[in-house]
Amino acid sequence: MLVHEHEPFNAEPPRAALRQGGPTPLDTFYVRNHGPVPEADPATWRLTVDGLVHRPLELSLEDLRTRFEETEVEATLQCAGNRRAGLMEVRDIPGEAPWGPGATSTARWAGVRLADVLDAAGLRPDAAHIAFAAPDVSPVADPPQPFGGSVPADKARSGEVLLAWSMNGAPLPPVHGAPLRAVVPGWIGARSVKWLRRITAQEHPSRNWFQATAYRLLPAGADPGRAGPGDGISLGPVALNCDILHPAPGARLPSGPTRISGYALAGEDRAVARVDVSADGGRSWTQARLGPGAGRWTWQPWHTDLDLPAGPVEIIARAWDTTGATQPESPRHLWNPKGYANNSWARLHLTCD
Amino acid sequence: MLVHEHEPFNAEPPRAALRQGGPTPLDTFYVRNHGPVPEADPATWRLTVDGLVHRPLELSLEDLRTRFEETEVEATLQCAGNRRAGLMEVRDIPGEAPWGPGATSTARWAGVRLADVLDAAGLRPDAAHIAFAAPDVSPVADPPQPFGGSVPADKARSGEVLLAWSMNGAPLPPVHGAPLRAVVPGWIGARSVKWLRRITAQEHPSRNWFQATAYRLLPAGADPGRAGPGDGISLGPVALNCDILHPAPGARLPSGPTRISGYALAGEDRAVARVDVSADGGRSWTQARLGPGAGRWTWQPWHTDLDLPAGPVEIIARAWDTTGATQPESPRHLWNPKGYANNSWARLHLTCD
Repeated sequence: MLVHEHEPFNAEPPRAALRQGGPTPLDTFYVRNHGPVPEADPATWRLTVDGLVHRPLELSLEDLRTRFEETEVEATLQCAGNRRAGLMEVRDIPGEAPWGPGATSTARWAGVRLADVLDAAGLRPDAAHIAFAAPDVSPVADPPQPFGGSVPADKARSGEVLLAWSMNGAPLPPVHGAPLRAVVPGWIGARSVKWLRRITAQEHPSRNWFQATAYRLLPAGADPGRAGPGDGISLGPVALNCDILHPAPGARLPSGPTRISGYALAGEDRAVARVDVSADGGRSWTQARLGPGAGRWTWQPWHTDLDLPAGPVEIIARAWDTTGATQPESPRHLWNPKGYANNSWARLHLTCD
Repeated sequence: MLVHEHEPFNAEPPRAALRQGGPTPLDTFYVRNHGPVPEADPATWRLTVDGLVHRPLELSLEDLRTRFEETEVEATLQCAGNRRAGLMEVRDIPGEAPWGPGATSTARWAGVRLADVLDAAGLRPDAAHIAFAAPDVSPVADPPQPFGGSVPADKARSGEVLLAWSMNGAPLPPVHGAPLRAVVPGWIGARSVKWLRRITAQEHPSRNWFQATAYRLLPAGADPGRAGPGDGISLGPVALNCDILHPAPGARLPSGPTRISGYALAGEDRAVARVDVSADGGRSWTQARLGPGAGRWTWQPWHTDLDLPAGPVEIIARAWDTTGATQPESPRHLWNPKGYANNSWARLHLTCD
């Protein structure tokens, strides 16, 4: 793991570790924490469901397991700061971690459907947003507060949003949210709140600092230190994105036929339709072969073979989604003060002998 | 109107006509036809609803008016070929019209909800797509055939998809689909099939030539003459886009403070969140003021005032949607053989004295 920070712990797998495709092993899955990992005694832990519901609930882990159907969803999570390093090459972003393409991992999540729990609580018609709250007090927030966030009620009521206690068949590790976390496929990782304690149905989006003020796309000229609640664009569905996982950046290789492989990801109701790869600055493109995906909510592995000339080579990759949208070219025009949503073309520099 | 073709009739309003904002007058609304305008006697006209339904229907206009609730939706339609002229500046696209930014118009549509008609017919659970058929035989299709297309059942069952008989309070003109057309807000204009005669619930998307083979995004290197059904990306939800409506391209103006105005549009479940304008090639951006929109399905007017220097000036505009996605920079990298979905940055060249 490439550790960006020890306290709170923030780390991402190297490209080589993601290259295998399929579910990411537990000890390789990226970790994005905003505060210390809170301890919870599974025996006394309770989940509160309140707010605009007819029947507020107080559920133990045993209640969740026995009262609701267990279900599994394979889903890729991606941090909104994924590929921030590419923006930092344009201009520094003080106080933020230089995430590469590895703030992206996939797991088979098991738990219960949030929709079923909300049905049991009886969502009132004025419940437009479902907010998640956790106990991990973050010193980053202003004022310091636990992490939280919300999703629209329509998303919360879709079958794919889980309250998960397991990943890849194993109990959720503490660093990934034990005993219970939200998993919101297709949305930025920040909405998949870990160490869940409370689910509140409400009329408005979360006013937690991490949603109202952070995880927002500010204009390039804005001062993030002065940004207030509601400034900028609230990030939600993940941006169409891709990166190259192999060869490694800066690799020295023999010229000739070379396998290039990577991943692509589209958010929410869109899927990856095509991935183009170019070794001549975008003058010509080769359509990559899309590998078998694991379903609607997971990333799309891809690969292609290019005949590389001797000398320095830049490999470019870009994805298209099922609506025909593609990625912007340059991080220069995507730079933003908090360094989110860098979905510019993936670029890899190699030297061939 | 700028007439691209007389038979079939294809024409778009000039930028100045769209600049007013609000609903586009009937005689100014863009026209995209693929064959001759079919004549229909409203007295004998019938709409067939068949396929995967429990109760096939045969409905007169009177049936539609009396059996279902009349409803109104204000929606912008945009042709997938909008702004093709910008792609043709990169490389010619033979046989296709050089649409500017005016293949985009807005109307208040009145009629009945497609969802209500489908409910009356009793959609079967295996109905995944709702296909529209019209009688206008197009010589462009291979083989020649009437125009048609489909939308997923989920979209068809949403309240915003109309079977419309009126626009802006007036009866639908023949050229816009009298006596009845589909209006599919948020999707490319091609799905809003005019002169509707048949609605078929089916398991698969439309196999009509205009959906299976045309209105698809092919890779730049593909030969459109050899493209077969299923090739490329089927266009559906409209791409995030914008253009500048004022000043006019090539205008000569006094230097100094200048009002720049235009429109932006986001498809389906996304909305326009921000519009940036630059007069220095994207080195700095001004956030435009977003005008009052008419609702979820209409374009977003915007304007800003820039202090323009003397000499030649390039004004650039780009939109961001509510997920934080923005438009690609250059038409050079979006060029495709049929010239669809040019959503590169809007660029306007002026000379200031």
